Amino acid sequence: MYFESRQSLGFEDCIKLHILWAIVSVAIEVGAAIIEEEEEEEDDGNKEEVVPKRYFSHLVGAVSSMMAHLLSTSCPLDIASSSRSYYKPSNQGSISFSASLSLPISRLPLKRLSTHGKKSQRCCTIYAAAVSTSQEAKTEPGSGSYSSSSEASTPKKVMVIGGDGYCGWATSLHLSNKNYEVAIVDNLVRRLFDHQLGLDSLTPISSIHNRIRRWKSLTGKDIQLYVGDICDFEFLSEAFKSFEPDAVVHFGEQRSAPYSMIDRSRAVFTQHNNVIGTLNVLFAIKEFKEDCHLVKLGTMGEYGTPNIDIEEGYITITHNGRTDTLPYPKQASSFYHLSKVHDSHNIAFTCKAWGIRATDLNQGVVYGLRTDETAMHEELCNRLDYDAVFGTALNRFCVQAAVDHPLTVYGKGGQTRGYLDIRDTVQCVELAIANPAQQGEFRVFNQFTEQFSVNQLATLVTKAGEKLGLQVRTISVPNPRVEAEEHYYNAKHTKLVELGLKPHLLSDSILDSLLYFAVQYKDRVDTKQIMPSVSWRKIGVKPKTLSA
Amino acid sequence: MYFESRQSLGFEDCIKLHILWAIVSVAIEVGAAIIEEEEEEEDDGNKEEVVPKRYFSHLVGAVSSMMAHLLSTSCPLDIASSSRSYYKPSNQGSISFSASLSLPISRLPLKRLSTHGKKSQRCCTIYAAAVSTSQEAKTEPGSGSYSSSSEASTPKKVMVIGGDGYCGWATSLHLSNKNYEVAIVDNLVRRLFDHQLGLDSLTPISSIHNRIRRWKSLTGKDIQLYVGDICDFEFLSEAFKSFEPDAVVHFGEQRSAPYSMIDRSRAVFTQHNNVIGTLNVLFAIKEFKEDCHLVKLGTMGEYGTPNIDIEEGYITITHNGRTDTLPYPKQASSFYHLSKVHDSHNIAFTCKAWGIRATDLNQGVVYGLRTDETAMHEELCNRLDYDAVFGTALNRFCVQAAVDHPLTVYGKGGQTRGYLDIRDTVQCVELAIANPAQQGEFRVFNQFTEQFSVNQLATLVTKAGEKLGLQVRTISVPNPRVEAEEHYYNAKHTKLVELGLKPHLLSDSILDSLLYFAVQYKDRVDTKQIMPSVSWRKIGVKPKTLSA
Repeated sequence: MYFESRQSLGFEDCIKLHILWAIVSVAIEVGAAIIEEEEEEEDDGNKEEVVPKRYFSHLVGAVSSMMAHLLSTSCPLDIASSSRSYYKPSNQGSISFSASLSLPISRLPLKRLSTHGKKSQRCCTIYAAAVSTSQEAKTEPGSGSYSSSSEASTPKKVMVIGGDGYCGWATSLHLSNKNYEVAIVDNLVRRLFDHQLGLDSLTPISSIHNRIRRWKSLTGKDIQLYVGDICDFEFLSEAFKSFEPDAVVHFGEQRSAPYSMIDRSRAVFTQHNNVIGTLNVLFAIKEFKEDCHLVKLGTMGEYGTPNIDIEEGYITITHNGRTDTLPYPKQASSFYHLSKVHDSHNIAFTCKAWGIRATDLNQGVVYGLRTDETAMHEELCNRLDYDAVFGTALNRFCVQAAVDHPLTVYGKGGQTRGYLDIRDTVQCVELAIANPAQQGEFRVFNQFTEQFSVNQLATLVTKAGEKLGLQVRTISVPNPRVEAEEHYYNAKHTKLVELGLKPHLLSDSILDSLLYFAVQYKDRVDTKQIMPSVSWRKIGVKPKTLSA
Repeated sequence: MYFESRQSLGFEDCIKLHILWAIVSVAIEVGAAIIEEEEEEEDDGNKEEVVPKRYFSHLVGAVSSMMAHLLSTSCPLDIASSSRSYYKPSNQGSISFSASLSLPISRLPLKRLSTHGKKSQRCCTIYAAAVSTSQEAKTEPGSGSYSSSSEASTPKKVMVIGGDGYCGWATSLHLSNKNYEVAIVDNLVRRLFDHQLGLDSLTPISSIHNRIRRWKSLTGKDIQLYVGDICDFEFLSEAFKSFEPDAVVHFGEQRSAPYSMIDRSRAVFTQHNNVIGTLNVLFAIKEFKEDCHLVKLGTMGEYGTPNIDIEEGYITITHNGRTDTLPYPKQASSFYHLSKVHDSHNIAFTCKAWGIRATDLNQGVVYGLRTDETAMHEELCNRLDYDAVFGTALNRFCVQAAVDHPLTVYGKGGQTRGYLDIRDTVQCVELAIANPAQQGEFRVFNQFTEQFSVNQLATLVTKAGEKLGLQVRTISVPNPRVEAEEHYYNAKHTKLVELGLKPHLLSDSILDSLLYFAVQYKDRVDTKQIMPSVSWRKIGVKPKTLSA
């Protein structure tokens, strides 16, 4: 599917897109500069609304650099030969860019946060030369295979906390593409983790600022950006009061089990960050937007591996002649997974006590790189983690196969989990938003599409690799985790299907595609990051530096 | 029972005790002063080991004051008539004080913490004039109705975190009396809460420093004191390395549900303080004393009020033809109760991953004021909270009855919970310590002795009040909590009985005794603190000051 879309873009299309983009960019910059001058005269003294001039310098820089790139001889070659299919029509069938640019006074995705108490943002709409289908884009929400909410014509406001991360970025773009009004809230600490641990995404990723600008330039759609920490309630409340979300999708947690098991301070950070951040979100909803629907990312890991079927959040128990439906017992196996268990309990309580409406998406292991939206441009490319700290099973195996590293099966490899394609992550979140929980309801969906054992994944990757001419080997690595390596596993996952989820099952083609990207970027792989370096049993109290 | 012991002490006994105590005290002071002088010459430059001279000034002051008290005419009258039976033989049958005083160089309960890496404490034993049964005291650990650990002859070291609180203080003294070597770790923040909220204990309580000194002067037993916050891992690790506990009893949490529901910052404080503090304790055990047994105070409130029997920590579930024994589902109903649920999950994980041995004592509502040890002297008196934030049901009702305030039944009053006498709290903790969990075992005991509904308690207090000539009324107050007011409740509590617990059931005499103390101290009651001021539903994000 990816390959087909890419092939439909020829050299001339690319040039056209470049030129369109350049025109639009310059128009934005000129318009913005004009407004800025006007603003300085009109300034009512509210300093917080002012944006640093460096933002505009950056924009000018970006435009100049893009113009230079456009004019350089290597440009078309890059696009045609690199198999990085950046330019894909945004579901419109023809190249028709939305170029109606609605710029808030703060004039940017990067919105500054100190607009205390200000609810209305004065907006200036700039019409660039290439105005065409902005209205169409708003009423025709794409080629999704399931029906969107009937309210699509009046886009809902969705705050995506953690919108710069792997799932968060893909979700933000998907929702924006579906005409939800999206604001990303992120402290960008995931990028800091990479710096601190000496890790990097397999794929090169742009800054969140460039990502959002690129998205806007491609689609005309604004994504607002609030850079800050949700553990800082003052920050969070300003973001809430300013954006007034109808739904909050909360990906904003430290999401790696190994990271939480590096040392004491990372364990404490993980639980503090995740639990207190979520508490703050709950308080913000109660205080500022009581009707707001919380869509919270949990994990299938909350359930552990019980010897009975795993239900979706609740289980009906008959005991000593009496019956009740109770929260499904939790047996998490890392400080990270435990933090999600804590969140679930906290959220359940606030639904009961305050009438919060919440959906807990107990997500399985996510694989895959591209969604329709992230595939539209190089600067929209998602991250892909292959290292032993942040990488997840299937993604890691594909990269290992690409660089001729044996697949690292931990222990016996019988560990079975639920898996899903990242295209289903974004689909599930949209379904949850479009079909909100009732007031006071704490709803739990198991968000995965298929179960695999680690050994099964290794076999699948080995076969797919062979087709690409890769000799894939597998080794058993002493298990750094404390977990059952052979166990019963049968987890229910019907509720999202009932809401309309059309799963992208793990097929040869997605494996081919993943392996293809892994091979494409294999020069970026640091093989020292592949073997596990974090031990569940050896975690200590001294701060540990994992640098090579 | 209290009354009987008190009545067995005549005027002459009291005088004898006073004189004995005075002699011992002076001997301590003189001996200590001598050592101090010697020490100043021997000083090896380790400043941390030096104790401020004011400690000795305080001791001199205390002795002088006691001598004056002894010589004053009102003294015997006080003792005979005030029903404050401070001087009670310490389970020896005859008045025989242990006066073998083992003073560490730091010469105090108040141990300073900067003794980095110092393991051995040089000790100086001072024999006072009244030496008698110190050896007996060590080998004959009292008249407890259950058998103590067989290792009583080599006292185990028990760290009591939160040892200045209601349950913690009573437990510390009880364990010290049973010849455990006790160290109290406490940041004393419970006293700060009182200041900040304008609350106070019904009973006047001494500083922790005076409490410990008094205990030593009465029994010759040292209780070490580490004043600091377990959320500060540097502090906690120094305490661990210095004391090297065989068991840690962890009461060191914010323990009031209403407190956790005052405002956002208190909710966040409660969860951070409790969860991170416990994580730090787990890491300290793993790092410094792997074999140490964690005895953690949980709460029956973790279970909520399910419509099936509540088991002790685990439940065996048969589901779709398969069976497993899983953690009992948790449904906590305040941020405080939730913090204990989080702790339970975290501890269970570390037992599995690290082999920690832990006992989770899911305690019911504690009532009562005195234990054998706290009854020994006015300065050992325990706190009793009657306010709507920290007071627990039965204690509150007794104080309300004493001041002619209607008993405040929240809602319908059908809320049923497990209750226990504070004398059983200390007994249960000792039983858990004496019978430690196995390595890797996460053991859960439900620690209560009887179930009552709020209405049943109101009826019992009304009847007991009538006997004392009190006209007790009851009113229904709109329930500030979110909880079922009529529900099934049947919680198991056999495991501690199997270990030897001999319950003190709620009888007329304990109610009489509680009411008696309430009447005695009724002039200290601030009636403005009786009605609930914290609403589960109205909690907001703005810091709330509850002062009158």
